[in-house]
Order: sequence, then structure tokens, then C-alpha cells
Amino acid sequence: MKVILRLTAKPDAAQELRSILTGLVAPTRKEPGCIAYEWFQNNADPCDFTSVEEWRDEAALDAHWSTPHVKDALARGGPLLAAAPDDRRYSKVA
Amino acid sequence: MKVILRLTAKPDAAQELRSILTGLVAPTRKEPGCIAYEWFQNNADPCDFTSVEEWRDEAALDAHWSTPHVKDALARGGPLLAAAPDDRRYSKVA
Repeated sequence: MKVILRLTAKPDAAQELRSILTGLVAPTRKEPGCIAYEWFQNNADPCDFTSVEEWRDEAALDAHWSTPHVKDALARGGPLLAAAPDDRRYSKVA
Repeated sequence: MKVILRLTAKPDAAQELRSILTGLVAPTRKEPGCIAYEWFQNNADPCDFTSVEEWRDEAALDAHWSTPHVKDALARGGPLLAAAPDDRRYSKVA
């Protein structure tokens, strides 16, 4: 299952959010159901971040949201967001 | 360079747009600067499509938009869209 999560940082919070997202990558990739997990920053807007994720199934993704590293990132990163996260789950077309 | 392109189909046009996007995949992957090119459909909204693309550089992406298969897809798919395409270019954070 593909997941794309967009986050918008408050002005001046992009660097701090970027650091938090960077810290999520290593522990997330160690989760058993994680097939791919990457973060990107919009070339035209440094406050605009997106993940591109691949998970084995819904259960693996649910487990991800309960990990200590995600809970910590939510606690520290939540106040840095300018808008609600845009979290979408996809199936491959081609 | 990462590219994520979101397209929103008009109601009842999702299947036709899906077919056009599917047809783009094989010829696009043969382009010399194309590293990865995939299309996905939102599990919660069949009118919501996104690509996840990786291009060697800006020149390769510019060339992609000038290919006959993209021009044909634009001509056929453009009238099926409910909103302007959301085209974003990214750099990898981690």
C-alpha cells in the first residue's frame, strides 16, 4: 500500500520540521512492515514536505503510528505545522 | 529529481483517466532520463490520482512534456480533469 503524507510547516519552522522528519527515517525503515519510506521537500516552497511510503498492509501502517519515534515526532512536530496533515492511501494503477 | 503530480478526474471520468494514465507508463519509462514513473489511485476517492516520478534532471522532465505520448494524453485527458493539475518538484530530505 502506497502512502503519501503532505505536511506544511509554519513560516520559519521548515528547518526544524525537516530535522524531525529526517530523524524518523532510520527507525521507521526498521519496522517489519515498512517497504519504503522517504521524505522530500518542495523545490519551490521549503515549508512543503511530502513522504512517499510503501507498507505491507494496513496493520503495518497502524503499528507505525503507535511507535515511540512517531509519537515523539508528533509531539515535537505537531506545533510546527501550518495546516492539518494531508494523508492519502493509494493503490497502484500502473 | 522527484516529481509528484496530482490529477483530479471529473465525476464519472475516473475510469477513462485511469486508462489514459496507464497508457503513459510504458513509453515514459523508455525515455532516457526517466528513472521511475508510477501512477496511483486514492483508495478513498477514485477520482484522485497521483504520480510518483524520478527524473535525471530538469532537461529530462522538460523533454517528457514534449513527447507524443504526453501530448496525446494531455489532449485526451485534459477535458476529464475537474481541477488544474497539482505539479510539484522535490528534493530528497532523507
